[in-house]
This record gives sequence, structure tokens and C-alpha cells, in this order.
Amino acid sequence: MKKLINRPQMVVRESLAGLALAHPDLVEVHTDPTYVLRAGGRVPGKVGIVSGGGSGHEPMHAGYVGRGMLDAACPGDIFTSPTPDQIEQASRAVDSGAGVLHIVKNYTGDVMNFEMAAELCRAGGITVEAVVINDDVAVRDSLYTAGRRGVGTTVLAEKICGAAAERGYDLQQLAGLCTRVNANGRSIGVALTSCTVPAAGRPTFEIGEAELEFGIGIHGEPGRERLPMQPAQAIVAMMARAVTGDLGLRRGEQVIALVNGMGGTPLIELYIVYHELARICQAMGVGIARRLIGSYITSLEMAGCSITLLRADDELVGLWDDPVHTPALRWGV
Amino acid sequence: MKKLINRPQMVVRESLAGLALAHPDLVEVHTDPTYVLRAGGRVPGKVGIVSGGGSGHEPMHAGYVGRGMLDAACPGDIFTSPTPDQIEQASRAVDSGAGVLHIVKNYTGDVMNFEMAAELCRAGGITVEAVVINDDVAVRDSLYTAGRRGVGTTVLAEKICGAAAERGYDLQQLAGLCTRVNANGRSIGVALTSCTVPAAGRPTFEIGEAELEFGIGIHGEPGRERLPMQPAQAIVAMMARAVTGDLGLRRGEQVIALVNGMGGTPLIELYIVYHELARICQAMGVGIARRLIGSYITSLEMAGCSITLLRADDELVGLWDDPVHTPALRWGV
Repeated sequence: MKKLINRPQMVVRESLAGLALAHPDLVEVHTDPTYVLRAGGRVPGKVGIVSGGGSGHEPMHAGYVGRGMLDAACPGDIFTSPTPDQIEQASRAVDSGAGVLHIVKNYTGDVMNFEMAAELCRAGGITVEAVVINDDVAVRDSLYTAGRRGVGTTVLAEKICGAAAERGYDLQQLAGLCTRVNANGRSIGVALTSCTVPAAGRPTFEIGEAELEFGIGIHGEPGRERLPMQPAQAIVAMMARAVTGDLGLRRGEQVIALVNGMGGTPLIELYIVYHELARICQAMGVGIARRLIGSYITSLEMAGCSITLLRADDELVGLWDDPVHTPALRWGV
Repeated sequence: MKKLINRPQMVVRESLAGLALAHPDLVEVHTDPTYVLRAGGRVPGKVGIVSGGGSGHEPMHAGYVGRGMLDAACPGDIFTSPTPDQIEQASRAVDSGAGVLHIVKNYTGDVMNFEMAAELCRAGGITVEAVVINDDVAVRDSLYTAGRRGVGTTVLAEKICGAAAERGYDLQQLAGLCTRVNANGRSIGVALTSCTVPAAGRPTFEIGEAELEFGIGIHGEPGRERLPMQPAQAIVAMMARAVTGDLGLRRGEQVIALVNGMGGTPLIELYIVYHELARICQAMGVGIARRLIGSYITSLEMAGCSITLLRADDELVGLWDDPVHTPALRWGV
């Protein structure tokens, strides 16, 4: 294992310390328990949005804290759920009285701990709604998950709900919006290499020099099948078929597309993937209204990519275009 | 070699086609010869800024075309200089009569071809100034270079000069500014793994499981020395010493810092590197006025990072803060 780290058990803490030093205008990093708060804390009258999950998926979630996106993020250790008290403290820190939306990726530990946190919050007088993202079409159940895993649609949900909260949507409206984003978002990923969890020190799984894992999870969980390596055109065609088929996309519809790198894949390849995806969408008569291309929900240094398509209407596109100012995503400001 | 590509000889073309499909509001990709033009072409009254070089360093340079940065980029094949006619055509396409600034990284082929292009431009009545970036403190001469190589300061020079051109700096002022940025910028890189040029199909160099290359070039050129792998703290201390020493940074000065991933290094590690760098600068009494953390000048999928420090004054920081809207860098708009 070669990584630009110090001790494995300090990776998350030191990386967050770097985030805090880099972006004091955007975020405050709290410890004991650990959460990343939007600089300045709660915004009067606005619903607070909190997300979180295991670390190792950077910039998700801490990189999405700031105006127009998250009010707080709760990072667990690498690929480990945050604890209920992290989530409860973060929720308290962002609640202005308008309530708090939890955006939760569907992993058993995350769901359980967010549920416990929500109960603690409610006992303390904070209104909480939670929406679970389960957009990964690869497999029905998985290593850490009952039902579908939550992956790329989470990034889109955080951006869109973050914008809506700034516009003044109330908690019920936001929960409905987030549910609608989840219902209309689908993802699938492929891995060309494994990743190595620092504390483990060895690759999470073995993969041959001429193989790819189709339907990989963001923690290296097994996907649908191990396939021989093939050209980008064939890989993206399979990925697009899986996503568009499950979503039931029809001619004339429009989407927001995320072509996401897993952490070890360079941008030059992601634009080749986008090229293939755009041609497929064009042939299907599906318009790509907006797109995001880069490494936004990663699996440490894994090589590979995922594709997320979100069926979009004018409301979602408008919210997408609203200003955002976070360490990892910024426009309009 | 496992990459998300089709045929190796189509990598650059297909990636640029993806860029064009993704960002039609920002860039136009021209072929025969290949160059990437700011959407809408020349800006009346403004000096045009053209850069370029081998591909494989994405998002540099094509990802920096747009308002507030480059007017055109000339991508060569992977790690191969662009041809004089690419550069000449791009320069013609951006010249509004105010002249054209060429920002050139110091590699023998790039310098030669930009010089030939400048002569062709001048013969055609276009005023051209060229500034060569040579900020890599690692080695004096290198595989493809006489003198120091041009690396991370190029990104900062393109942003700062792009802003100045929008403000109305004339060609002489811009060339002076770019020369000043180069004179005050220093970089050094480390590699943990090699990269693989698609057409070669095998790693550019061999490196052991417990080794790092200190002073790596962005094409995998040898650096200062092969060292045993060590913690981030020790690596960053060596890097910072090399850069701050060469720059002669003194207590009370301020810098713009770039912590750059080589393509295969995840953000969680880059923030650990930034954490170490920020602590070193603080101990030295050097202020980090602005910072950029991410993969901005890459070497395909190489794992590793580089650090660039630019001694900054109010003019440079002000220009840094000006709006920019390109595929890879965006703020203030």
C-alpha cells in the first residue's frame, strides 16, 4: 500500500483538518463528535440539510458543505458509518427551528444510525425527515445493504435539495423533492482496479489485468458480474442500458447526467465515457440538460467510473442551476 | 493496461469530442488542425491567450478555455507537442488585433513549435509574445527539456493572465505579468506509481512497492532521486523545503498554493498533503492567501502529487479572485 498519508487511523482526521485549513470561509470542522458545519452555522428560517456516511468517497460529503448544498456532513471512518451522536450533534447545530432533512445513502449501518439520530433529535424537539437514496441498479441486495445501494444520485439530491432549501422550501416540500429525485435517479458503476482501505493495507478484492467488475459498489462490494475488459464504447453501452432501462427513459425526456470517476481514473477517460454516453442519449432521443463530469463520489483510489442519470423537469434543472459554493462544487457565486 | 478508452490512437480525439458535447456554451473544438477555442471566438479589443502542449495532463489545457482564462488551447497527442500549424491557427482564431500571448511550458518540442508558430503569426501580421514557464525545481535538465521543466505554475499563470486580459491589460503588460508569475512560482512533484501511455501500453517506468520518485516530471521523466516510501509528513516536508528554499520565501510573505493530484491520487490524500503544507507555511510565517486543491495538471493515471507555491502580492491575488468560467475552473459566475 502506497498512499500520501501518515498513520492509517489518522487519515480522516488529518484530511478534515486540511479541509478546515483550506476553506475556513466555507466550513467549520468540529471534533468529538466529528462533523463538518457550514461556516457560520445555522441559517435562520432555512431547513437544515445533513448528510454523511463513511469516508473514502471524497469530495462526498464534506466537500459539499456550504451555501446551496449541505448545512452539515458527518464523516465516519473509512467506509464506516457515522455514529448517531455525530448525526444528532450536526442536526442540532443546523436546526434553526425549521427542521432538518437527513439525506441517507442506503447502507444498513448508515440507515440504522441516521434513524437512531433522528429519534434522538425528535426527543430533543427537532423535527427531522429522512430520505434514503437507493439508486444503484447493479444488484438487489449487497454486502452492506438490504435493497439497492445509494450512490451517485446522492450528489444530485444534495445539490438540488440544497438549492431548494435556500429558496425557502419547507421540510415537507424538501422531503418530497428529495424522494422525487431518488425515484428518478439511477446509477451503475464499473471498477478496473480495487481500492485499499488504509487500515486493512491490502486491496479490498482481487481483479485480473484483463477484467472489469460490472456493477461495483462504492466500497468495492461485488457487482453483477466479472467481465473481460473491453473498449469504453462497449462498457458505456452496457452501463447506459442498465440505467436507462431501469429508469424507463423515453424519447423526448431530459436528464441531468453525472459521469463520475472512482478516484483513480483521470479526466481524459471520463470525457471519453461522456462522449459515448452523450451519443447513446442522442440516439435514444433523450436530452442531457445538464451534466457533471469528474470525481464526485469516489472509492479511495479505485480506477473506474459510474454513470448516474436523473430524469429532470424544469424545476429540477432550475434548482440545479442555482448558486452553490462548497469546497468541491461551485458556480453562480 | 486497463483504461476507459477505445483505440489508443483515438484517445485525444474522443476525449475532446466529449469535452465539446459537455460544454458547448464554453468551448468549440476544431479539428484539422486541432484546437479548442473559447465559444464565440475572439473577444474584440482583448489580447488573446493561447496555451497548449501534449495531452495526458487534463484538465490542462483544454479544460481552462473560457472566460477569464484561455482563449484557445492546442492539445498534442499524449505527451507530444502540438504542431506549429495548430498553434498558428488557434492564434489567428483568437486575435482581435490586440495581439496574442503564448504561454508555453518549457519542453524542447513545445518551445520549438510555439516559436515556429509565432514566426508564422508575425509573418501574417499578428503580434505575438511568448512566455516560457520553467518552474520545476526538481532538476536542471531533463529528458525532454533543456533547463527547468514547466509544470504547476502554468495553471496559475493561465488563470492570472486570463483575468488580466479580461481587465484590458495590453500585450506587453500581459507578457510582463506572465514573466513575473513564472519568476515567482516554483513546483516539485512526487510519483508513487508510473503512468501508462495508451499507445505504448506499458508503464513509462518501473517503481517498487515501497519506493517513491522525488522530483518526478509530468511525463514520468526521472526526478532527483528514488527514495523509500515514507509518511506524508516527511514527503511534504521535503517538497516544501525544495520549493520554499528555491523561491527564497521569507517570513511575512504570502503565496497562492496549488496542491495538485497527478491523476490517480484521491482528494482525501491531497487534503492530507495540504494539511502538512499549511502547517509548514504557518511555522515559516508564510501566509497562504489562496489555494487550489485537486487534480489540475496530471500525468494520466499516475499516483502522486505536486506542490506549487507562487509568491503573491495584492495584484496577483486580485486577479486570482476575478471571475473564471471554464470546464475545469469556475467561480464568480
